[in-house]
Amino acid sequence: LSSKLPDIGVSIFSQMTLLAQETGAINLAQGFPDYDPPQELLAALARHATTPGHQQYAPMPGLLRLRAAIAAQVSRLHAGAPAPDPATEITITAGATEALFAVLAAVVRPGDEVVVFEPAYDLYGPAIRLQGGVPRYVRLPAPHFRPDWDAVRRVLTPRTRLVMVNTPHNPSGAVFDASDWAELARLLDGTDILVLSDEVYEHLVFDDAQHLSARQHPLLRERSFVLSSFGKTYHATGWKVGYCIAPPLLSAEVRRVHQFLTFAVSTPTQHALADALETDSTDTHARGLAAFYQAKRDQFRQLLADTGWELLPVPGGYFQLARYAAFSPAGDLAFAETLARDWGVAVVPVSAFYHDNFDEGLVRFCFAKEAATLTAATTRLRR
Amino acid sequence: LSSKLPDIGVSIFSQMTLLAQETGAINLAQGFPDYDPPQELLAALARHATTPGHQQYAPMPGLLRLRAAIAAQVSRLHAGAPAPDPATEITITAGATEALFAVLAAVVRPGDEVVVFEPAYDLYGPAIRLQGGVPRYVRLPAPHFRPDWDAVRRVLTPRTRLVMVNTPHNPSGAVFDASDWAELARLLDGTDILVLSDEVYEHLVFDDAQHLSARQHPLLRERSFVLSSFGKTYHATGWKVGYCIAPPLLSAEVRRVHQFLTFAVSTPTQHALADALETDSTDTHARGLAAFYQAKRDQFRQLLADTGWELLPVPGGYFQLARYAAFSPAGDLAFAETLARDWGVAVVPVSAFYHDNFDEGLVRFCFAKEAATLTAATTRLRR
Ligand SMILES: CSCCC(=O)C(=O)O
Ligand SMILES: CSCCC(=O)C(=O)O
Repeated sequence: LSSKLPDIGVSIFSQMTLLAQETGAINLAQGFPDYDPPQELLAALARHATTPGHQQYAPMPGLLRLRAAIAAQVSRLHAGAPAPDPATEITITAGATEALFAVLAAVVRPGDEVVVFEPAYDLYGPAIRLQGGVPRYVRLPAPHFRPDWDAVRRVLTPRTRLVMVNTPHNPSGAVFDASDWAELARLLDGTDILVLSDEVYEHLVFDDAQHLSARQHPLLRERSFVLSSFGKTYHATGWKVGYCIAPPLLSAEVRRVHQFLTFAVSTPTQHALADALETDSTDTHARGLAAFYQAKRDQFRQLLADTGWELLPVPGGYFQLARYAAFSPAGDLAFAETLARDWGVAVVPVSAFYHDNFDEGLVRFCFAKEAATLTAATTRLRR
Repeated sequence: LSSKLPDIGVSIFSQMTLLAQETGAINLAQGFPDYDPPQELLAALARHATTPGHQQYAPMPGLLRLRAAIAAQVSRLHAGAPAPDPATEITITAGATEALFAVLAAVVRPGDEVVVFEPAYDLYGPAIRLQGGVPRYVRLPAPHFRPDWDAVRRVLTPRTRLVMVNTPHNPSGAVFDASDWAELARLLDGTDILVLSDEVYEHLVFDDAQHLSARQHPLLRERSFVLSSFGKTYHATGWKVGYCIAPPLLSAEVRRVHQFLTFAVSTPTQHALADALETDSTDTHARGLAAFYQAKRDQFRQLLADTGWELLPVPGGYFQLARYAAFSPAGDLAFAETLARDWGVAVVPVSAFYHDNFDEGLVRFCFAKEAATLTAATTRLRR
């Protein structure tokens, strides 16, 4: 059996989580919190798990009440954009991962080119290649990881089908501002190039940064698949419920694929999430995440201040990039292994986010952890 | 935007469920029970939904305890087959649907041919075409819907990559016996053609029929992806947890795709299912399904005996096929619409299971319903 993805091994996230388990290292590698979702949300899942009639197939595009609750929240948060129509513009998926795969499967044909900014979440490239598509990579320069729009213009060709963006960005935390969206819109105007905007960290923006969705730009909204998920927002990465918002014709194509990819998503889990959204019409939970995570970011940075760790800026997300040149000339994968084995902290080497393993000596820490975990980890890191 | 699946509309199952809701018809169309999963299973989900630490990402191939519990059950039920290795041979997926899509995405390349028996579950053809594959259809003849193995031999070519089988079969209930597997093995021996065996109705076999898995044939086991799911077994079609069992090299390819398709499946739900399997080491629940559903089948058939409805044999599954020629010369889709609107019972027209909408005047009833529902529906059907 010759593989369609011969170069794909165990993901770096799984690898590092296993290494942490093996070595007893504190796991700041894979992105997930070490605390639980809000108690009311857990209680809601327990309630729907035992509600008669809530255990069979949900409708293929998702429970209408969940789609309606998402539409209501999005219309409150995406200033300037019309509310999406729950009937035709929102599709519930098995995490943003399924949404991303479904968009690619729906629109990318063999030979089509897809623009990907690197560093990039590890599934972007392989998921494109599985459709027969060709990733065209544009490197984001450290330390700010902001797109060079001239470089983007240079990779566009008549075969370009899609541009994938991710804001706030994993792993760097970079956040698109209005000028980024305006530049992208200028480049795409007059073409039929589509946009996939992965916005799963949408509520995690710090200091003066503000999340702007692709939906908030009128020219881009028409051609964008906007993805988000409840995993980051509700500290529930294990629930695997995400969604795609797109205009009706684009959503119809996503649904054509979603129907065959998973058909529908856990019914009791969708009910629980709908309860959470419906009972928070002021978006107190979502709006509180920025301060919650900014405190964690600041604590983590504070605890590593005045050390050899060179901390890059973190305008969003829940990851801290750091340069370790002061300690070691090793490659980042080798350094990450040493750090886990000898110093007891698991991280992700940033070269894992580049198709060519470009390595500039950076590692990624996840700071979505209890204060005590961050203290324990930084104590080790300070040695 | 030109569609990659221009001919795909709303699935017949969703269409008919909507029609039932609109008209107040009793829904015997889409396959799902109108009763709930066992109370202990619901309690287990409620428990894990509120267990700290059970809300983050499961391992990519699934919780090891769930994979181990599946391996243990399968080794008890698949007589003659070695137990699958949970570490390398079992992958938990977002329902059997995701498993099916992942297998196709992993092994089918553009131009590869895939043998599909028709009638076939509606996703087989489109999911093959999305990979650039070419379905080669072989028709199963009513009323027994058993494969004509000479016809299969005639569609095999050097481009054949995969044969898809489904036993017990949806919609007909046909069950492969040892001679079917032997014939398939004979045809594939000496080729590198793979097998996808969709066995989600494995526990629903009636009278003298016995479920035999592709895993129980030594020559086929080596080349087979065996899919099953907890949806049918635990009356929980809305939970969306399935799995794929395949030899290590084949499982590795499925995982390479699963990693990018959904990455992982609901953690609390996997824990709940592991509890259910672990606490039933005699497989009392699974073994009880045959009698449970045979009683429903018999009740349903009894209530339609001596009417114009010509009931086809049902050796397995939870569907009854019926010929309505005595009432109407209409096509099956038109007849199904009339039946829902004028007579108050929603069914699935069997032509929906053929790529060319082959129509021999059959409709499908789902009898996974409370006795009272079956009585009410058949009262209407007797008019
Ligand atoms: C699905 S495992 C990866 C989790 C994550 O988003 C990350 O660590 O970047
Ligand atoms: C996923 S909806 C279809 C359910 C089913 O298995 C059927 O009705 O055949």
